[in-house]
Amino acid sequence: MNVLAGFEPKLPEGYRDAEYVFLGNIDPVMQLEVLRQLRSMKLVVCDTMDHWIRESEEDLKKVLQRIEILVINDSEARLLSGFDNIVKAARAILKMGPKMVLIKRGEYGVLQFSDSSVFATPAYPLEEVFDPTGAGDSFAGGFMGHLARSGDQSQGGLRRAIVYGSVVASFTVEDFGVKRLTDVSLAEIEERYQKFINLTDFHS
Amino acid sequence: MNVLAGFEPKLPEGYRDAEYVFLGNIDPVMQLEVLRQLRSMKLVVCDTMDHWIRESEEDLKKVLQRIEILVINDSEARLLSGFDNIVKAARAILKMGPKMVLIKRGEYGVLQFSDSSVFATPAYPLEEVFDPTGAGDSFAGGFMGHLARSGDQSQGGLRRAIVYGSVVASFTVEDFGVKRLTDVSLAEIEERYQKFINLTDFHS
Repeated sequence: MNVLAGFEPKLPEGYRDAEYVFLGNIDPVMQLEVLRQLRSMKLVVCDTMDHWIRESEEDLKKVLQRIEILVINDSEARLLSGFDNIVKAARAILKMGPKMVLIKRGEYGVLQFSDSSVFATPAYPLEEVFDPTGAGDSFAGGFMGHLARSGDQSQGGLRRAIVYGSVVASFTVEDFGVKRLTDVSLAEIEERYQKFINLTDFHS
Repeated sequence: MNVLAGFEPKLPEGYRDAEYVFLGNIDPVMQLEVLRQLRSMKLVVCDTMDHWIRESEEDLKKVLQRIEILVINDSEARLLSGFDNIVKAARAILKMGPKMVLIKRGEYGVLQFSDSSVFATPAYPLEEVFDPTGAGDSFAGGFMGHLARSGDQSQGGLRRAIVYGSVVASFTVEDFGVKRLTDVSLAEIEERYQKFINLTDFHS
């Protein structure tokens, strides 16, 4: 039973000029309808899940033709592509349309693939993981937020956005739901971004 | 049944001055006996496994008092420490003696913990993983080999050794057993090390 049956997304006028668009994990038919109402996109990123891959593959593939970046977890990447090897899975998904695929691996971090770049980053190791709910969505939020504020879609800019997404997700899991995000400051985010640099640096 | 019962390791005279010592995954009693025969160690690194953690915990803890670095996989770290959270597990193991613990996470990379450093590095993503046998041991070999050639035990030097270990392991899994390692060249290793820099860089 689809409780959203009959629902039609209708964007408020002020939203139709959004430049950085994240299509959350809903029915691909609705994602397409949201896209239809937008007119100023600089970047469209999309999330999906096993249910839509299995039940709405045809519509999902139409969405994939219309977006720049797909954000997906590793098991969904395998399901969507039919490949168990994650590199092969990513390459196959790139052929479906997106210019880039971001593969979320939970506590193990994120892999980014495009035709010209492979980037791997660990997750921030935490001594207390209270509740992983929302980690993936807040990763996407931090990623989009950094791109929107920096306007930098260079290879380095996209990689830094991935790290900011990982930083935001690391705060999310420190408390229930989105509670930690309601009080985290930009200064704390920047501080953890610096720690992330130290976490991964092997040059100095 | 212990097929090695009664076996006593006896190091050839020329080996007793080894400076960089890796105690492979054998009975902790034998690891202690090997240590007793050495006289010029600059660095002692040790591997172990679930069997010794369960069956020879007391002897293993004597070994941990005598070494600088423990190399272990994530499930073994949890078993040895009693903590499910990997950061807590690492902190608990550091209290048992080693100055540093390296936690191997297979295709997800390596975490390093010491009192002054936390370092995380992904594994090199491969399109073909032929046989993961020996990946952990060749990680340790590449790690030790780089330290022995560089003599650099600074924080950065240890981190670079971890990346070299990951590079060597990435070659190991490309063919059966150690076959790929018998023909890999130093130039290929250095080339993949450079690719590893590009894989993880988000500064440029």
